[in-house]
Amino acid sequence: MTRTTYGDNLVVTDRGGVVENTHEIHAAVTDADGRLLFYVGNPHRITLIRSAAKPMQALAVVETGGADQSSFDSVDLALMCASHSSEERHVQRARQMLVKVGATEDDLRCGGQPSITPQVTEGWWRDGVTPTAVYNCCSGKHAGMLAGAKALGAPLTDYHLHDHPIQQRVKRAVEEVARLPPSEIIWGIDGCNMPAPAYPLISLSHSYALFAKASSDLGRDAATTERERWMGRIYDAMARHPEQVGGDGRFCTMLMEAFEGRLIGKLGADACYAIGVKESEETRRLGARGALGLAVKVGDGNYSILYAVLAHLLEQLRIGSSGEREALKAFHELKMVNSVGVQTGTVNFQYKLHSVL
Amino acid sequence: MTRTTYGDNLVVTDRGGVVENTHEIHAAVTDADGRLLFYVGNPHRITLIRSAAKPMQALAVVETGGADQSSFDSVDLALMCASHSSEERHVQRARQMLVKVGATEDDLRCGGQPSITPQVTEGWWRDGVTPTAVYNCCSGKHAGMLAGAKALGAPLTDYHLHDHPIQQRVKRAVEEVARLPPSEIIWGIDGCNMPAPAYPLISLSHSYALFAKASSDLGRDAATTERERWMGRIYDAMARHPEQVGGDGRFCTMLMEAFEGRLIGKLGADACYAIGVKESEETRRLGARGALGLAVKVGDGNYSILYAVLAHLLEQLRIGSSGEREALKAFHELKMVNSVGVQTGTVNFQYKLHSVL
Repeated sequence: MTRTTYGDNLVVTDRGGVVENTHEIHAAVTDADGRLLFYVGNPHRITLIRSAAKPMQALAVVETGGADQSSFDSVDLALMCASHSSEERHVQRARQMLVKVGATEDDLRCGGQPSITPQVTEGWWRDGVTPTAVYNCCSGKHAGMLAGAKALGAPLTDYHLHDHPIQQRVKRAVEEVARLPPSEIIWGIDGCNMPAPAYPLISLSHSYALFAKASSDLGRDAATTERERWMGRIYDAMARHPEQVGGDGRFCTMLMEAFEGRLIGKLGADACYAIGVKESEETRRLGARGALGLAVKVGDGNYSILYAVLAHLLEQLRIGSSGEREALKAFHELKMVNSVGVQTGTVNFQYKLHSVL
Repeated sequence: MTRTTYGDNLVVTDRGGVVENTHEIHAAVTDADGRLLFYVGNPHRITLIRSAAKPMQALAVVETGGADQSSFDSVDLALMCASHSSEERHVQRARQMLVKVGATEDDLRCGGQPSITPQVTEGWWRDGVTPTAVYNCCSGKHAGMLAGAKALGAPLTDYHLHDHPIQQRVKRAVEEVARLPPSEIIWGIDGCNMPAPAYPLISLSHSYALFAKASSDLGRDAATTERERWMGRIYDAMARHPEQVGGDGRFCTMLMEAFEGRLIGKLGADACYAIGVKESEETRRLGARGALGLAVKVGDGNYSILYAVLAHLLEQLRIGSSGEREALKAFHELKMVNSVGVQTGTVNFQYKLHSVL
């Protein structure tokens, strides 16, 4: 018989000391040269990166000239990279982006859905709001795609389909930033109806390190290509407008607010996550060259466990001060309490963070 | 490095053919003699059975004489075994039980919480309802415990604590029905603030087979002990009032409605489940003596996967007709669709159901 697996890559929750749930963790920590520095589980796990692809999707859009032609500012850029909470500020901004593009909500090919934040959905129910496409957490990305399609002179209809010129640009941008041949990236369809790439965690981690490096290079006028400059601007947009990338109380927002520009972080659905950290004494201490990337996937798609693991990994790697990481305490020290507030168990980080160097 | 585990006890979801999430499954199929007939993963997994303990908790209450003294009928008995959806009929019934006991909502030691069914919670938000203790999905069980405490002449206060006389009765009932010594059962605290036992899945499966056997014996006047008669009545209460045990659209309710008295099924939080099937040609074909029990735990606590696995196991074991199992189709053939209704992937039952006999 199969024994219950207790590998070296698990988070285990208990109740009264008895194992309740087990969650498999995979993580890769790399640098801007793509070298693997640390890992948990299988850093080569082929992973559907979902919305962690947004910075690369935004890159494809800005490289068409579409962002400039539509007069998108850095807040718009941040919303293109967002899985926002559909708060009023996000929905309004998405509407404004559509106006700038010269498109309407009818052009969006995503559907309406509940907010990622239950309190926001609760408010809609109270106020009788029916969420339409512009309320979709990916509406900024979709508005951006319309700008890209327009700049390419391609039809706005079907901008979400794999064969559309803007999606072919996305495909190439994802391949090139991941430094992978087309044959090593597999495409599915995302929750918001756009192509969704799958590739190894180590390459996702590398991609985010490249965004962080591009921002540093941009800041000291050392960016040598148009692409690097755009990657730096995308990083800066996310880092400067974290409230657009997630929302009130969301991990992405609180992480980037706490680190004040020193990193970007982005959630992907089903508990995938990527972080890019600018080069500093901290990243050099970890053996990184240029910048540091971190990519994580929880095997069963559990978000609470994902956030706890991210906060725990930042602590293990000593990225940021304890003061900065304090902002993530509620995510890190997951409270296992019942309906009357009694603590019933704990979260145990039983995985091993392997060092490669 | 750890390779991503693809054991023989997994459910795997994919997106465009790429593995998205993996879920570890453990299951035990036994008969009323406690013999293991089939299993998935580790049938001996020590599992916090959570609300799957409710028939045993109800047994402890009725054996105090408390149910009779409070004039509980079979609907009340069913609600004592429920993780109900807090629909109006459930909340009203729980209030009536409190009146019968001579207690008030202030005596309940569970807290209010959202309904298991989001649409019910949505209704509360629309109507400005704040869920109090009587709305808790376990309010029937808690009202029952008050009846038991009263029958024992014990204080109503603190009926939920491990040392209270009614909980000591529960402890003994759980041990005796599981046929396990006290040392093999570990107790935590449940979400509703009552003691929660943990023990091997195989023993949970056995317990439910015993409830099914008791109902058959009761029906043909062959029950020989007071306990057997009570176990038969608890089974019958659940089987006759499935709408009390869960709620509209809930798996427990739809399963029991479809099988019209031939089985009972009960959910436990964090994706544990137990089913007891009365002896029939079907159970004998599977090699069972007396009745059949089935217990399942999804390692990471995912409910959608749990329900899909249960429907799949019933099909694999050919329990019920295809017409009866049709009622569970929406749980079995989980639709992986996105915000505009496009199918994005599939659910793959990659586990092996091992036969022991």
